[in-house]
Amino acid sequence: MITSRSKRTISLFARLPGVGEKTAQRYLLYLLTAEDELAAELGRELVELRQHLQPCSLCGNIAEIETPTSTAICAICSDVKRDPSLLCVVARVHDLLAIERAGSMRGRYFVLGKLLSPLEGVGPDDLPIERLLARIQKENVQEVICATPPSVDGEATALLLKRELAPLGVTLSRIASGVPHGGDLEFADPITMGRAFAGRQRL
Amino acid sequence: MITSRSKRTISLFARLPGVGEKTAQRYLLYLLTAEDELAAELGRELVELRQHLQPCSLCGNIAEIETPTSTAICAICSDVKRDPSLLCVVARVHDLLAIERAGSMRGRYFVLGKLLSPLEGVGPDDLPIERLLARIQKENVQEVICATPPSVDGEATALLLKRELAPLGVTLSRIASGVPHGGDLEFADPITMGRAFAGRQRL
Repeated sequence: MITSRSKRTISLFARLPGVGEKTAQRYLLYLLTAEDELAAELGRELVELRQHLQPCSLCGNIAEIETPTSTAICAICSDVKRDPSLLCVVARVHDLLAIERAGSMRGRYFVLGKLLSPLEGVGPDDLPIERLLARIQKENVQEVICATPPSVDGEATALLLKRELAPLGVTLSRIASGVPHGGDLEFADPITMGRAFAGRQRL
Repeated sequence: MITSRSKRTISLFARLPGVGEKTAQRYLLYLLTAEDELAAELGRELVELRQHLQPCSLCGNIAEIETPTSTAICAICSDVKRDPSLLCVVARVHDLLAIERAGSMRGRYFVLGKLLSPLEGVGPDDLPIERLLARIQKENVQEVICATPPSVDGEATALLLKRELAPLGVTLSRIASGVPHGGDLEFADPITMGRAFAGRQRL
């Protein structure tokens, strides 16, 4: 028999992405039986979360802020060692973090937040294109790398960027798509295989 | 680039069962971009969790308490319509909740918290046998149903209960194990099949 309070906690946990009723119940039972102060610690952290972490006002990455009134600028945008002439456009913060883990990008980022998706009703006006154009001009960016995923929506967004950025005269490039490192050609799907061949480079 | 505060939130989330670094990061990013007050709401709930929800002092089920000093008694233990002569012993609160969902038990419960497991170093002294015996005697229980899972540890625990409860003269029963409802005999493993035959009942 579940109490009303545990029902409330379960329904809040279940609003996290990928968490259903059963997983939420598992979290709750763990927090109730774990010997330490985990529930209270996590709770305090979450209560203050949005006061201390905000999207970077320049790129959309996570930024830590000192006081609630200060402008959020992330560690990458404020890092003077980053190449200001190179801007990498990504769909989500997750993608930015994945690129950072790989460590292959020496420029800065711009997070779109979403992809062009006619099926889900996301049109060009729903993307922060104005802000992107303003940043490119203000910071004198020379090359924009489009690192949206190699999906239908990601490619559509890349084409939109091509059209929108054309008047600015900056170089626009697109990350390569093909058979992943360590991947077996036997298991590559036809589209990936097609891209691997279309994007072949002279040795 | 991940800030130190988001690292802390991620490491706290990652202490939940089944949550790794990536899932924890996903929760954090969701909470940072979700439009509503979810982070703060969940946070407030968790800060107070252990003050309002405690294991029932009689059976170990989740119990809601009014004031921090009051004794936790769960809704089942305090339900006078439950048969006090029937006590169902389970390993975990999860199992109790599953049995309650099925609605096939009209008695009360006793949660062991763990199972006898020589491999994991859990011996008879690590189980709350004393408390169980005391409750059986105090509440004049007539039948104890052992509903530990049909695993090696669950069976070992059932045998321990048999030995410990023998002097009390209560009836001890064990839930049936066999081919599940809707299950195909073709896919039943040999142990389940063996149990289905050994536990056959006259029609």
